[in-house]
Amino acid sequence: MKLDEKGLLIVISGPSGVGKGTVRSALFDMTGHDLVYSISMTTRKPRANEVDGEDYFFVSKEEFEKRISEGKMLEYAEFINNYYGTPLDEVERNLNLGKEVVLEIEVNGATQVREKMKDAIFIFIAPPSFKSLKDRLMSRGTEPVELIEERCNKAERELHLAYMYDYIVVNDSVENAADKIMAIIRAEHAKTERTIQKYKQILEEENEY
Amino acid sequence: MKLDEKGLLIVISGPSGVGKGTVRSALFDMTGHDLVYSISMTTRKPRANEVDGEDYFFVSKEEFEKRISEGKMLEYAEFINNYYGTPLDEVERNLNLGKEVVLEIEVNGATQVREKMKDAIFIFIAPPSFKSLKDRLMSRGTEPVELIEERCNKAERELHLAYMYDYIVVNDSVENAADKIMAIIRAEHAKTERTIQKYKQILEEENEY
Repeated sequence: MKLDEKGLLIVISGPSGVGKGTVRSALFDMTGHDLVYSISMTTRKPRANEVDGEDYFFVSKEEFEKRISEGKMLEYAEFINNYYGTPLDEVERNLNLGKEVVLEIEVNGATQVREKMKDAIFIFIAPPSFKSLKDRLMSRGTEPVELIEERCNKAERELHLAYMYDYIVVNDSVENAADKIMAIIRAEHAKTERTIQKYKQILEEENEY
Repeated sequence: MKLDEKGLLIVISGPSGVGKGTVRSALFDMTGHDLVYSISMTTRKPRANEVDGEDYFFVSKEEFEKRISEGKMLEYAEFINNYYGTPLDEVERNLNLGKEVVLEIEVNGATQVREKMKDAIFIFIAPPSFKSLKDRLMSRGTEPVELIEERCNKAERELHLAYMYDYIVVNDSVENAADKIMAIIRAEHAKTERTIQKYKQILEEENEY
Protein backbone atom coordinates (compact mmCIF):
# COMPACT_ATOMS: atom_id res chain seq x y z
CA MET A 1 0.00 0.00 0.00
CA LYS A 2 1.28 3.44 -0.90
CA LEU A 3 0.25 6.25 1.42
CA ASP A 4 1.97 8.77 -0.81
CA GLU A 5 0.83 8.76 -4.41
CA LYS A 6 2.49 11.94 -5.58
CA GLY A 7 5.75 11.77 -7.51
CA LEU A 8 8.84 13.34 -6.00
CA LEU A 9 11.20 15.79 -7.64
CA ILE A 10 14.71 14.54 -6.86
CA VAL A 11 17.57 16.93 -7.51
CA ILE A 12 20.99 15.31 -7.81
CA SER A 13 23.79 17.83 -7.86
CA GLY A 14 27.38 18.36 -6.77
CA PRO A 15 30.62 19.87 -8.03
CA SER A 16 31.82 19.47 -11.61
CA GLY A 17 33.75 16.24 -11.97
CA VAL A 18 32.21 14.45 -9.00
CA GLY A 19 30.54 11.86 -11.22
CA LYS A 20 26.90 12.96 -11.02
CA GLY A 21 26.14 11.47 -14.43
CA THR A 22 27.62 8.07 -13.59
CA VAL A 23 25.72 7.88 -10.30
CA ARG A 24 22.50 8.90 -12.03
CA SER A 25 23.08 6.19 -14.66
CA ALA A 26 23.64 3.54 -11.99
CA LEU A 27 20.47 4.70 -10.23
CA PHE A 28 18.42 4.20 -13.38
CA ASP A 29 20.02 0.79 -13.96
CA MET A 30 18.59 -0.42 -10.64
CA THR A 31 15.40 -2.48 -10.70
CA GLY A 32 12.04 -1.84 -9.14
CA HIS A 33 11.84 1.93 -9.45
CA ASP A 34 9.60 4.37 -11.23
CA LEU A 35 12.10 7.11 -12.02
CA VAL A 36 11.92 9.47 -14.96
CA TYR A 37 15.00 11.37 -16.01
CA SER A 38 14.49 15.00 -16.85
CA ILE A 39 16.46 15.66 -20.02
CA SER A 40 18.32 18.96 -20.02
CA MET A 41 18.21 21.55 -22.75
CA THR A 42 21.37 23.12 -24.12
CA THR A 43 22.61 25.46 -26.80
CA ARG A 44 25.98 23.72 -27.13
CA LYS A 45 26.58 21.62 -30.22
CA PRO A 46 25.90 17.87 -29.92
CA ARG A 47 28.99 15.66 -29.66
CA ALA A 48 29.39 12.85 -32.18
CA ASN A 49 27.50 10.19 -30.21
CA GLU A 50 24.82 12.42 -28.70
CA VAL A 51 21.16 12.16 -29.66
CA ASP A 52 18.68 15.06 -29.53
CA GLY A 53 15.87 14.40 -27.03
CA GLU A 54 17.90 11.66 -25.39
CA ASP A 55 21.17 13.15 -24.14
CA TYR A 56 19.93 16.72 -24.35
CA PHE A 57 17.36 18.78 -26.13
CA PHE A 58 19.62 20.73 -28.48
CA VAL A 59 18.20 24.16 -29.27
CA SER A 60 19.40 27.49 -30.62
CA LYS A 61 20.49 30.35 -28.40
CA GLU A 62 17.44 32.35 -29.55
CA GLU A 63 15.02 29.61 -28.61
CA PHE A 64 16.65 29.13 -25.20
CA GLU A 65 16.49 32.87 -24.43
CA LYS A 66 12.86 32.99 -25.50
CA ARG A 67 12.10 30.16 -23.04
CA ILE A 68 13.91 32.01 -20.24
CA SER A 69 11.93 35.19 -20.83
CA GLU A 70 8.68 33.21 -20.88
CA GLY A 71 9.51 31.54 -17.52
CA LYS A 72 9.65 28.13 -19.15
CA MET A 73 12.98 27.09 -17.61
CA LEU A 74 13.00 25.58 -14.11
CA GLU A 75 16.69 26.43 -13.88
CA TYR A 76 19.46 27.36 -16.26
CA ALA A 77 23.07 28.45 -16.39
CA GLU A 78 25.46 29.92 -18.88
CA PHE A 79 28.76 28.08 -19.07
CA ILE A 80 31.53 28.74 -21.59
CA ASN A 81 29.14 30.74 -23.77
CA ASN A 82 26.43 28.10 -23.80
CA TYR A 83 23.16 27.71 -21.95
CA TYR A 84 22.24 24.55 -20.05
CA GLY A 85 18.91 24.16 -18.30
CA THR A 86 15.79 22.21 -17.36
CA PRO A 87 12.54 22.74 -19.30
CA LEU A 88 9.76 23.27 -16.73
CA ASP A 89 6.84 21.85 -18.75
CA GLU A 90 8.23 18.29 -18.95
CA VAL A 91 8.99 18.22 -15.21
CA GLU A 92 5.49 19.37 -14.29
CA ARG A 93 3.84 16.96 -16.70
CA ASN A 94 5.65 13.98 -15.17
CA LEU A 95 5.07 15.08 -11.57
CA ASN A 96 1.36 15.44 -12.29
CA LEU A 97 1.38 11.88 -13.66
CA GLY A 98 2.69 10.77 -10.24
CA LYS A 99 6.16 9.93 -11.56
CA GLU A 100 9.47 10.44 -9.77
CA VAL A 101 11.41 13.04 -11.70
CA VAL A 102 15.19 13.07 -11.36
CA LEU A 103 17.18 16.17 -12.24
CA GLU A 104 20.95 15.87 -12.51
CA ILE A 105 22.12 19.44 -12.58
CA GLU A 106 24.83 21.94 -11.66
CA VAL A 107 24.99 23.40 -8.16
CA ASN A 108 23.95 26.81 -9.42
CA GLY A 109 20.86 25.31 -11.05
CA ALA A 110 19.95 23.40 -7.89
CA THR A 111 19.87 26.69 -5.99
CA GLN A 112 17.34 28.03 -8.50
CA VAL A 113 15.17 24.91 -8.15
CA ARG A 114 15.25 25.24 -4.36
CA GLU A 115 13.57 28.62 -4.66
CA LYS A 116 10.83 27.37 -6.96
CA MET A 117 10.07 23.82 -5.80
CA LYS A 118 9.78 23.72 -2.03
CA ASP A 119 8.88 20.01 -1.99
CA ALA A 120 11.89 18.79 -3.96
CA ILE A 121 14.56 16.56 -2.39
CA PHE A 122 18.10 17.91 -2.74
CA ILE A 123 20.95 15.43 -2.79
CA PHE A 124 24.57 16.60 -2.92
CA ILE A 125 27.05 14.15 -4.42
CA ALA A 126 30.37 14.69 -2.65
CA PRO A 127 33.80 13.38 -3.65
CA PRO A 128 35.63 11.16 -1.12
CA SER A 129 38.17 14.00 -0.91
CA PHE A 130 38.92 17.34 -2.55
CA LYS A 131 42.14 15.90 -3.93
CA SER A 132 40.34 13.06 -5.72
CA LEU A 133 38.06 15.61 -7.37
CA LYS A 134 40.98 17.78 -8.50
CA ASP A 135 42.76 14.73 -9.91
CA ARG A 136 39.66 13.87 -11.91
CA LEU A 137 39.19 17.36 -13.26
CA MET A 138 42.83 17.60 -14.29
CA SER A 139 43.00 14.18 -15.94
CA ARG A 140 40.22 14.95 -18.40
CA GLY A 141 42.90 16.39 -20.65
CA THR A 142 40.62 17.39 -23.49
CA GLU A 143 40.49 21.05 -22.53
CA PRO A 144 42.98 23.97 -22.29
CA VAL A 145 44.74 24.60 -18.95
CA GLU A 146 42.82 27.81 -18.15
CA LEU A 147 39.53 25.97 -18.56
CA ILE A 148 40.64 23.18 -16.24
CA GLU A 149 41.78 25.75 -13.69
CA GLU A 150 38.46 27.55 -13.94
CA ARG A 151 36.68 24.23 -13.35
CA CYS A 152 38.83 23.49 -10.30
CA ASN A 153 38.06 26.86 -8.77
CA LYS A 154 34.36 26.45 -9.52
CA ALA A 155 34.39 22.95 -8.00
CA GLU A 156 35.99 24.27 -4.82
CA ARG A 157 33.33 26.97 -4.46
CA GLU A 158 30.62 24.39 -5.14
CA LEU A 159 31.97 22.02 -2.49
CA HIS A 160 31.17 24.65 0.10
CA LEU A 161 27.48 24.75 -0.82
CA ALA A 162 26.75 21.21 0.42
CA TYR A 163 25.11 22.61 3.56
CA MET A 164 22.17 23.85 1.46
CA TYR A 165 21.16 20.29 0.54
CA ASP A 166 18.91 17.82 2.34
CA TYR A 167 21.35 14.94 1.98
CA ILE A 168 25.07 14.48 1.33
CA VAL A 169 26.02 11.26 -0.47
CA VAL A 170 29.71 10.47 -0.88
CA ASN A 171 30.58 8.99 -4.27
CA ASP A 172 33.11 6.50 -2.90
CA SER A 173 31.63 3.82 -5.11
CA VAL A 174 29.01 4.41 -7.78
CA GLU A 175 26.83 1.47 -6.66
CA ASN A 176 26.99 2.59 -3.06
CA ALA A 177 25.98 6.14 -3.95
CA ALA A 178 23.11 4.97 -6.19
CA ASP A 179 21.94 2.58 -3.45
CA LYS A 180 21.87 5.40 -0.93
CA ILE A 181 19.88 7.65 -3.26
CA MET A 182 17.31 4.88 -3.71
CA ALA A 183 17.06 4.53 0.09
CA ILE A 184 16.56 8.29 0.36
CA ILE A 185 13.72 8.19 -2.17
CA ARG A 186 12.00 5.32 -0.34
CA ALA A 187 12.40 7.03 3.02
CA GLU A 188 11.08 10.34 1.72
CA HIS A 189 7.89 8.61 0.57
CA ALA A 190 7.33 7.35 4.13
CA LYS A 191 7.76 10.80 5.70
CA THR A 192 4.78 11.72 7.82
CA GLU A 193 4.30 15.09 6.11
CA ARG A 194 3.76 13.21 2.83
CA THR A 195 1.68 10.32 4.17
CA ILE A 196 -0.52 11.78 6.91
CA GLN A 197 -3.32 13.00 4.64
CA LYS A 198 -3.89 9.64 2.94
CA TYR A 199 -3.46 7.89 6.29
CA LYS A 200 -6.25 9.99 7.81
CA GLN A 201 -8.53 9.17 4.88
CA ILE A 202 -8.00 5.46 5.51
CA LEU A 203 -8.88 5.86 9.18
CA GLU A 204 -12.06 7.74 8.34
CA GLU A 205 -13.18 5.25 5.70
CA GLU A 206 -12.65 2.38 8.08
CA ASN A 207 -14.71 3.93 10.83
CA GLU A 208 -17.76 3.76 8.61
CA TYR A 209 -17.75 -0.04 8.74
CA MET B 1 33.13 6.26 3.57
CA LYS B 2 30.82 7.16 6.43
CA LEU B 3 30.29 10.85 7.03
CA ASP B 4 28.14 10.10 10.04
CA GLU B 5 29.78 7.94 12.67
CA LYS B 6 27.27 8.36 15.47
CA GLY B 7 24.70 5.67 16.10
CA LEU B 8 21.04 6.50 15.67
CA LEU B 9 18.24 5.88 18.14
CA ILE B 10 15.39 4.38 16.14
CA VAL B 11 11.99 4.23 17.80
CA ILE B 12 9.55 1.77 16.26
CA SER B 13 6.05 2.17 17.61
CA GLY B 14 2.40 1.91 16.64
CA PRO B 15 -0.90 0.70 18.03
CA SER B 16 -1.25 -2.56 19.97
CA GLY B 17 -1.73 -5.46 17.60
CA VAL B 18 -0.15 -3.80 14.55
CA GLY B 19 2.72 -6.30 14.49
CA LYS B 20 5.58 -4.12 15.75
CA GLY B 21 7.41 -7.15 17.14
CA THR B 22 7.21 -9.12 13.90
CA VAL B 23 8.44 -6.17 11.86
CA ARG B 24 11.29 -5.58 14.29
CA SER B 25 12.23 -9.27 14.06
CA ALA B 26 12.26 -9.15 10.26
CA LEU B 27 14.42 -6.02 10.42
CA PHE B 28 17.00 -7.79 12.58
CA ASP B 29 16.93 -10.82 10.26
CA MET B 30 18.13 -8.61 7.39
CA THR B 31 21.82 -8.69 6.50
CA GLY B 32 24.40 -5.92 6.46
CA HIS B 33 23.20 -3.84 9.37
CA ASP B 34 24.62 -2.82 12.71
CA LEU B 35 21.46 -2.71 14.77
CA VAL B 36 21.21 -3.36 18.48
CA TYR B 37 17.86 -4.13 20.04
CA SER B 38 17.11 -2.41 23.30
CA ILE B 39 15.58 -5.03 25.58
CA SER B 40 12.65 -3.76 27.62
CA MET B 41 12.23 -4.14 31.34
CA THR B 42 8.99 -5.38 32.84
CA THR B 43 7.43 -6.39 36.13
CA ARG B 44 5.10 -8.92 34.54
CA LYS B 45 5.86 -12.59 35.03
CA PRO B 46 7.84 -14.33 32.27
CA ARG B 47 5.81 -16.61 29.99
CA ALA B 48 6.92 -20.23 29.65
CA ASN B 49 9.31 -19.68 26.72
CA GLU B 50 10.66 -16.28 27.73
CA VAL B 51 14.26 -15.74 28.83
CA ASP B 52 15.38 -12.99 31.22
CA GLY B 53 17.78 -10.55 29.54
CA GLU B 54 16.70 -11.75 26.11
CA ASP B 55 12.94 -11.22 25.78
CA TYR B 56 12.76 -8.79 28.68
CA PHE B 57 14.61 -7.88 31.80
CA PHE B 58 12.21 -9.23 34.40
CA VAL B 59 12.36 -7.25 37.63
CA SER B 60 10.24 -6.70 40.72
CA LYS B 61 7.78 -3.83 41.07
CA GLU B 62 9.99 -2.33 43.80
CA GLU B 63 13.10 -2.35 41.62
CA PHE B 64 11.21 -0.81 38.68
CA GLU B 65 9.81 2.00 40.83
CA LYS B 66 13.26 2.68 42.28
CA ARG B 67 14.60 3.05 38.73
CA ILE B 68 11.79 5.46 37.82
CA SER B 69 12.48 7.66 40.83
CA GLU B 70 16.20 7.69 39.99
CA GLY B 71 15.51 8.78 36.38
CA LYS B 72 16.95 5.54 35.03
CA MET B 73 14.03 4.78 32.69
CA LEU B 74 14.01 6.38 29.22
CA GLU B 75 10.28 5.64 29.05
CA TYR B 76 7.81 3.45 30.86
CA ALA B 77 4.12 2.65 31.09
CA GLU B 78 1.83 0.84 33.43
CA PHE B 79 -0.45 -1.62 31.69
CA ILE B 80 -2.78 -4.08 33.40
CA ASN B 81 -1.00 -3.55 36.71
CA ASN B 82 2.46 -4.13 35.31
CA TYR B 83 5.28 -1.78 34.34
CA TYR B 84 6.98 -1.95 30.97
CA GLY B 85 9.86 0.32 30.05
CA THR B 86 13.29 1.00 28.54
CA PRO B 87 16.37 1.16 30.79
CA LEU B 88 18.26 4.36 29.90
CA ASP B 89 21.79 3.17 30.76
CA GLU B 90 21.92 0.42 28.12
CA VAL B 91 20.62 2.75 25.40
CA GLU B 92 23.22 5.39 26.20
CA ARG B 93 26.03 2.88 26.40
CA ASN B 94 25.25 1.54 22.91
CA LEU B 95 24.75 4.97 21.35
CA ASN B 96 28.13 6.07 22.73
CA LEU B 97 29.69 3.00 21.11
CA GLY B 98 28.33 4.27 17.78
CA LYS B 99 25.71 1.54 17.49
CA GLU B 100 22.20 1.85 16.07
CA VAL B 101 19.77 1.28 18.91
CA VAL B 102 16.27 0.11 18.06
CA LEU B 103 13.42 0.56 20.54
CA GLU B 104 10.17 -1.23 19.86
CA ILE B 105 7.75 0.38 22.27
CA GLU B 106 4.19 1.50 22.95
CA VAL B 107 2.89 4.80 21.59
CA ASN B 108 2.78 6.30 25.05
CA GLY B 109 6.44 5.43 25.60
CA ALA B 110 7.45 6.90 22.25
CA THR B 111 5.95 10.23 23.31
CA GLN B 112 8.17 10.18 26.41
CA VAL B 113 11.27 9.40 24.32
CA ARG B 114 10.44 12.27 21.95
CA GLU B 115 10.74 14.70 24.85
CA LYS B 116 14.09 13.35 25.98
CA MET B 117 15.93 12.37 22.80
CA LYS B 118 15.60 15.11 20.21
CA ASP B 119 17.80 13.28 17.70
CA ALA B 120 15.87 10.02 17.65
CA ILE B 121 14.00 8.80 14.55
CA PHE B 122 10.34 8.02 15.16
CA ILE B 123 8.67 5.44 12.95
CA PHE B 124 4.97 4.68 13.26
CA ILE B 125 3.88 1.22 12.10
CA ALA B 126 0.36 1.56 10.72
CA PRO B 127 -2.10 -1.20 9.86
CA PRO B 128 -3.36 -1.40 6.27
CA SER B 129 -6.78 -0.55 7.72
CA PHE B 130 -8.43 -0.03 11.08
CA LYS B 131 -10.59 -3.07 10.47
CA SER B 132 -7.59 -5.35 9.96
CA LEU B 133 -6.20 -4.15 13.29
CA LYS B 134 -9.47 -4.77 15.10
CA ASP B 135 -9.71 -8.25 13.59
CA ARG B 136 -6.25 -9.02 14.85
CA LEU B 137 -6.90 -7.73 18.34
CA MET B 138 -10.14 -9.71 18.58
CA SER B 139 -8.72 -12.96 17.24
CA ARG B 140 -6.06 -13.21 19.94
CA GLY B 141 -8.66 -14.99 22.03
CA THR B 142 -6.48 -15.57 25.05
CA GLU B 143 -7.93 -12.72 27.07
CA PRO B 144 -11.30 -11.74 28.53
CA VAL B 145 -13.71 -9.64 26.44
CA GLU B 146 -13.32 -6.47 28.53
CA LEU B 147 -9.55 -6.60 28.03
CA ILE B 148 -9.92 -7.00 24.27
CA GLU B 149 -12.35 -4.10 24.17
CA GLU B 150 -9.95 -1.97 26.21
CA ARG B 151 -7.19 -2.84 23.73
CA CYS B 152 -9.38 -1.90 20.76
CA ASN B 153 -10.20 1.48 22.27
CA LYS B 154 -6.56 2.09 23.10
CA ALA B 155 -5.52 1.10 19.57
CA GLU B 156 -7.99 3.55 18.10
CA ARG B 157 -6.66 6.40 20.22
CA GLU B 158 -3.10 5.42 19.29
CA LEU B 159 -3.89 5.40 15.57
CA HIS B 160 -4.60 9.12 15.83
CA LEU B 161 -1.11 9.90 17.14
CA ALA B 162 0.69 8.98 13.90
CA TYR B 163 1.12 12.66 13.04
CA MET B 164 3.68 12.99 15.86
CA TYR B 165 6.10 10.62 14.12
CA ASP B 166 8.78 11.29 11.50
CA TYR B 167 7.70 8.41 9.29
CA ILE B 168 4.60 6.27 8.77
CA VAL B 169 5.25 2.74 7.53
CA VAL B 170 2.26 0.57 6.63
CA ASN B 171 2.60 -3.04 7.73
CA ASP B 172 1.00 -4.48 4.58
CA SER B 173 3.75 -7.10 4.43
CA VAL B 174 6.35 -7.66 7.11
CA GLU B 175 9.25 -7.76 4.62
CA ASN B 176 8.08 -4.59 2.95
CA ALA B 177 7.81 -2.76 6.26
CA ALA B 178 11.25 -3.97 7.43
CA ASP B 179 12.75 -2.97 4.06
CA LYS B 180 11.32 0.52 4.38
CA ILE B 181 12.67 0.93 7.89
CA MET B 182 16.13 -0.05 6.66
CA ALA B 183 15.86 2.54 3.87
CA ILE B 184 14.85 5.16 6.44
CA ILE B 185 17.89 4.35 8.58
CA ARG B 186 20.24 4.62 5.57
CA ALA B 187 18.65 7.87 4.45
CA GLU B 188 18.83 9.40 7.92
CA HIS B 189 22.58 8.76 8.00
CA ALA B 190 22.96 10.77 4.78
CA LYS B 191 21.01 13.77 6.10
CA THR B 192 23.01 16.96 5.83
CA GLU B 193 22.48 17.90 9.46
CA ARG B 194 24.23 14.65 10.46
CA THR B 195 26.98 14.69 7.83
CA ILE B 196 27.97 18.33 7.38
CA GLN B 197 30.45 18.49 10.25
CA LYS B 198 32.52 15.50 9.12
CA TYR B 199 32.23 16.71 5.52
CA LYS B 200 33.71 20.08 6.46
CA GLN B 201 36.59 18.36 8.25
CA ILE B 202 37.40 16.42 5.10
CA LEU B 203 37.42 19.62 3.02
CA GLU B 204 39.77 21.30 5.48
CA GLU B 205 42.17 18.38 5.67
CA GLU B 206 42.38 18.19 1.91
CA ASN B 207 43.17 21.84 1.50
CA GLU B 208 46.39 21.30 3.41
CA TYR B 209 47.79 19.15 0.63
